[in-house]
Amino acid sequence: MDLSQREAAAQTRLEPVWFDYLQGGAGEERTVRDNRDAWGRWSLRPHYLRDVRGTSAATTLLGTPSPAPMVVAPTAMHRLFHPDGELATAAGAAAAGMIYTVSMAAMTSLEDIAATAPGAPRWMQVYMFADRGITKACCERAAAAGYAALVLTIDSPVTARNLRNERNGFNVPAGLTLPNLAPPDAHDLDIWGIVGAYDPAVTPDDIAIVSAWGGGLPVVVKGLVRGDDARRAVDAGAAAVAVSNHGGRQLDTCIATARALPEVVDAVAGDAEVYVDGGVRAGIDVVKALALGARAVLVGRPVIWGLATDGAAGVESVLRELTDDTARALALCGVTSPHDVTRDLLT
Amino acid sequence: MDLSQREAAAQTRLEPVWFDYLQGGAGEERTVRDNRDAWGRWSLRPHYLRDVRGTSAATTLLGTPSPAPMVVAPTAMHRLFHPDGELATAAGAAAAGMIYTVSMAAMTSLEDIAATAPGAPRWMQVYMFADRGITKACCERAAAAGYAALVLTIDSPVTARNLRNERNGFNVPAGLTLPNLAPPDAHDLDIWGIVGAYDPAVTPDDIAIVSAWGGGLPVVVKGLVRGDDARRAVDAGAAAVAVSNHGGRQLDTCIATARALPEVVDAVAGDAEVYVDGGVRAGIDVVKALALGARAVLVGRPVIWGLATDGAAGVESVLRELTDDTARALALCGVTSPHDVTRDLLT
Amino acid sequence: MDLSQREAAAQTRLEPVWFDYLQGGAGEERTVRDNRDAWGRWSLRPHYLRDVRGTSAATTLLGTPSPAPMVVAPTAMHRLFHPDGELATAAGAAAAGMIYTVSMAAMTSLEDIAATAPGAPRWMQVYMFADRGITKACCERAAAAGYAALVLTIDSPVTARNLRNERNGFNVPAGLTLPNLAPPDAHDLDIWGIVGAYDPAVTPDDIAIVSAWGGGLPVVVKGLVRGDDARRAVDAGAAAVAVSNHGGRQLDTCIATARALPEVVDAVAGDAEVYVDGGVRAGIDVVKALALGARAVLVGRPVIWGLATDGAAGVESVLRELTDDTARALALCGVTSPHDVTRDLLT
Amino acid sequence: MDLSQREAAAQTRLEPVWFDYLQGGAGEERTVRDNRDAWGRWSLRPHYLRDVRGTSAATTLLGTPSPAPMVVAPTAMHRLFHPDGELATAAGAAAAGMIYTVSMAAMTSLEDIAATAPGAPRWMQVYMFADRGITKACCERAAAAGYAALVLTIDSPVTARNLRNERNGFNVPAGLTLPNLAPPDAHDLDIWGIVGAYDPAVTPDDIAIVSAWGGGLPVVVKGLVRGDDARRAVDAGAAAVAVSNHGGRQLDTCIATARALPEVVDAVAGDAEVYVDGGVRAGIDVVKALALGARAVLVGRPVIWGLATDGAAGVESVLRELTDDTARALALCGVTSPHDVTRDLLT
Repeated sequence: MDLSQREAAAQTRLEPVWFDYLQGGAGEERTVRDNRDAWGRWSLRPHYLRDVRGTSAATTLLGTPSPAPMVVAPTAMHRLFHPDGELATAAGAAAAGMIYTVSMAAMTSLEDIAATAPGAPRWMQVYMFADRGITKACCERAAAAGYAALVLTIDSPVTARNLRNERNGFNVPAGLTLPNLAPPDAHDLDIWGIVGAYDPAVTPDDIAIVSAWGGGLPVVVKGLVRGDDARRAVDAGAAAVAVSNHGGRQLDTCIATARALPEVVDAVAGDAEVYVDGGVRAGIDVVKALALGARAVLVGRPVIWGLATDGAAGVESVLRELTDDTARALALCGVTSPHDVTRDLLT
Repeated sequence: MDLSQREAAAQTRLEPVWFDYLQGGAGEERTVRDNRDAWGRWSLRPHYLRDVRGTSAATTLLGTPSPAPMVVAPTAMHRLFHPDGELATAAGAAAAGMIYTVSMAAMTSLEDIAATAPGAPRWMQVYMFADRGITKACCERAAAAGYAALVLTIDSPVTARNLRNERNGFNVPAGLTLPNLAPPDAHDLDIWGIVGAYDPAVTPDDIAIVSAWGGGLPVVVKGLVRGDDARRAVDAGAAAVAVSNHGGRQLDTCIATARALPEVVDAVAGDAEVYVDGGVRAGIDVVKALALGARAVLVGRPVIWGLATDGAAGVESVLRELTDDTARALALCGVTSPHDVTRDLLT
Repeated sequence: MDLSQREAAAQTRLEPVWFDYLQGGAGEERTVRDNRDAWGRWSLRPHYLRDVRGTSAATTLLGTPSPAPMVVAPTAMHRLFHPDGELATAAGAAAAGMIYTVSMAAMTSLEDIAATAPGAPRWMQVYMFADRGITKACCERAAAAGYAALVLTIDSPVTARNLRNERNGFNVPAGLTLPNLAPPDAHDLDIWGIVGAYDPAVTPDDIAIVSAWGGGLPVVVKGLVRGDDARRAVDAGAAAVAVSNHGGRQLDTCIATARALPEVVDAVAGDAEVYVDGGVRAGIDVVKALALGARAVLVGRPVIWGLATDGAAGVESVLRELTDDTARALALCGVTSPHDVTRDLLT
Repeated sequence: MDLSQREAAAQTRLEPVWFDYLQGGAGEERTVRDNRDAWGRWSLRPHYLRDVRGTSAATTLLGTPSPAPMVVAPTAMHRLFHPDGELATAAGAAAAGMIYTVSMAAMTSLEDIAATAPGAPRWMQVYMFADRGITKACCERAAAAGYAALVLTIDSPVTARNLRNERNGFNVPAGLTLPNLAPPDAHDLDIWGIVGAYDPAVTPDDIAIVSAWGGGLPVVVKGLVRGDDARRAVDAGAAAVAVSNHGGRQLDTCIATARALPEVVDAVAGDAEVYVDGGVRAGIDVVKALALGARAVLVGRPVIWGLATDGAAGVESVLRELTDDTARALALCGVTSPHDVTRDLLT
């Protein structure tokens, strides 16, 4: 089952309300499409007549080894897609050796996720709530549970409109909880109320605050598309920045991440790692991200397609295939490691 | 009901002859489509890590406060779309606090419109007729009825061909009147005869003439797409210019308004307010117009979709949603007011 | 009936083999489409606030007055489209006051065509045959019959492939003749043999030869797309050149005429008139051609749509509508005459 | 039967698994489409008013005369498409006078192919296997059988993913052999195992090695898209390079060959012949390749369409039609020989 077959299978398995939630985005969903298309607009200029024996996609991310320049992106509410929810995602990511970024809006407690695959690498994503105690508690719990980094999402100062969700009346099903941001006995959650409670005044100073709440954990600032914003984040202590427009879910017609990436790479100037997400579906996309200066990509929807179709095994399979596909694309381009990818592979 | 749902609902409710009249344009309708597409061709480069508490879309237009940088565009013959016609539009606009630009080709007298929502802000649109007394009378009545500005449409020196209307045999239904340009007892109006009676020799000198007819009211010159024309209008006394190609209804393959806007803004150089219309359907479009230097947008067809589907309540709803969507887009771009939007938000 | 309705009606009336012959082109018909699309890629930047009373499309072409900057293009074998054939075309063109360029491959003798509308302006198109006597005879007859110019088509040194015609087994129906190039009693003509007999060695020297055969008639060299070729033609005595790729019927992916036109205009530098054909369907296209430096356009397929649907009346109607539409487009652009169109109307 | 009709007929005749194998490519098959589209993005600027009598497409390739600047590209396993397999291809190519490049993955021994058309020009394609004795043996046999050149494919250091083949479970049918790379009694071949055995460490030094195995035969290095790689190949002794991305079968979103060609031509600087393949379907494409500096094109899939529909006669017909079409395109562009094509024919 290749990735587009998995996507089709996920559509078959999931109720439309959940599948639409997964696939959709803000407004007319132009950014959702642009993110994907922007990778395709770059053409590759592969090198041949080179020795590519031993090609490997392996790298390190904030010091943690990874079999590929790739991280499981934070995505919310995995029990909508599979009864095992985040526990399956965690098991699959661990089997593939990939860092799993747990969403603050997970339907499983971060401690249970950590317990299901004790030795696996894990990052914790957080939103800053206007009631900052909510975020503080989550950071403290993540640090206590051994998470290696905090991913602070900054692209949601207000709530975007998602027309598919509005038409479907999307909300959290009764009986399901979000134990990393609400009391575990809160069973009738209004997702729109929750996202409406995010702090509209997140500033660079909050990077150090979040890190401190996490006992000094490194902070990945996720959800920016401008060099100047990236520079401010790095100057304020971010260990990494993730070029992201929330998969097209926040601001329709936002610049595609593949287009925004070079400016951010230039502004960061090597002072932090740079990641990118949005529309990555194949090894060639990963190679292009590397060529544009990214250290790694974040993979969101494809992981959920794996989860929806096969639980933990599906997640593992998707991640292994992307890893293999990245190594294959590297070798076909004449390079043996992510660290050898250069800009002139693209045109 | 989001805006595209309203558009679909309007199509369901209206007879094809009226819906075609509403939606259509000149020739192959390339400009109708280009106007819309031109906004989408701009991508946004939002700022994050900023405090966006208290974001508001409010502004002033020719000194009149408005909840958003937005005006109800002049559109003709509202009784084709709802039995309450312009009275419903006026009530809806007033409820939303938005300036309503009454069309000279309204099917309700400008005095009745003024009476239906006495305190609401209102502008009056006029065409210059070859029989200039027609236009003079209308300007005088508007001034007497408390309209705050006159909008002089200049893009119709001759009659355009609209193939949909020709095929449908579109005309004013017997029994309906255009009391702001024809005697109120004229009940068998030929719209093609009327538009054929526009003056083909409107020149900059007419701006002061129209203003004088209105007792000194400020004049918005609407329907230009060139910097040199805009400069001539402003030098001749225009208080504002509206970049417009009549919604693609006059000259097919006319430059899209979003493309023409920057040249006009540069030529006007701050000496008058600059508005723009054509294809504005969401808050992100409004933000783009502001970033390109417009003071406000004019909204035409969406208001009629509201009118056709729900009368005054529909008009109000459309305008409120666009206002909210503009504030949301501002906040998502990291700015708290229309006055803080800068050009570098676009690429 | 607007022009696209006529096109559809012609398709209904004509047998597919003739309609395909009319509409089709070489290879994948990219140039057929590109010719049309190239006009649409230009946007208009109309002027307003100008006095456009008395706008007229009238001009002169090689000294002959014309109601519009437009000539009926030479197209072959009109009896395939209407039983009255070229006699109907001639009558329609004469009624509209337009110059009719008779094709050497007409199915009516040039003398009969001249006789049907004695006072009307007429040009005669010729191919150079390897048997040059064929062409010489035609030129002599045209001069004797009062034709005002010779149009020498140069874009057919060898026979192009037209896949529609090949699949349809297109050929001249038995019983029909081509009396301007073959003996009038030749009734079983093989069109492929005829076009295969064109001279593959037409050079600039032939321009003076053709003119001499016509008793000194001016020669329009038709079928070039390069400035250098145009310059050679003008230096060799051409009174006019027509930028044309034979309506996309000769060399697929040939540059679109609207794209090629400016280079030719520059090279000719006012030393001859420049015409253009290919994809002109509306007054806005004519204005664009003028803005790019053409003196006039040649109109081919639309005339045949008129002929096929209504005979002489259809031809007249198409030409009158295009004339009116050109005047309308001029006025909407703020100019009152073809001679006042300037390049900056386009972007 | 024109070429697109042949393609359609091949689809009708072949089982989907074989047709998909023939037509498909890597990943989303963007490069398959881009290769084709890239020719179409160039427009031709033909010359007229020139003497084009005696136009011929004939040229020489590595000193061998050819009726057109065209070679039969190496493609694998012809018995999947016609029972006569490579023997039919050889006979058809010989009848058309065209050089036939036999694939190392042919289903007929290179000696039998040579014997079927003794005097015809033939080249032998090889892959370098990690077990280099396999390649050495093939080169030695080709030299002994009178092949005039060796074509070393370098674009397959690792195995690409082809989703159509995966979904179809494509493999070599039992009973068919690949006698130029495996023992002739090997009847249960796993094509994926074979391509997985290619050497991932082919370097420029191997060019001389392959030539030496072939007793000094000239080597065409096939499968590069970069100027620097081409230069390395030529400096290492390549007699020619073929700009190719394996018909889009190796690296999806690889640069289209028509786009890559100019850079390679510049880098080679006349020190070797340059060929190109990918998407060539008509004489106009050949002329464009020549204008961009290629000496010839390689034609792959169209030959197989001929083979699948008509065996040897189909192959001959396709090659003759492409030859004629090339001569026609040359004449329509005003040039009489491939050697007279200049860059300024394109825009």
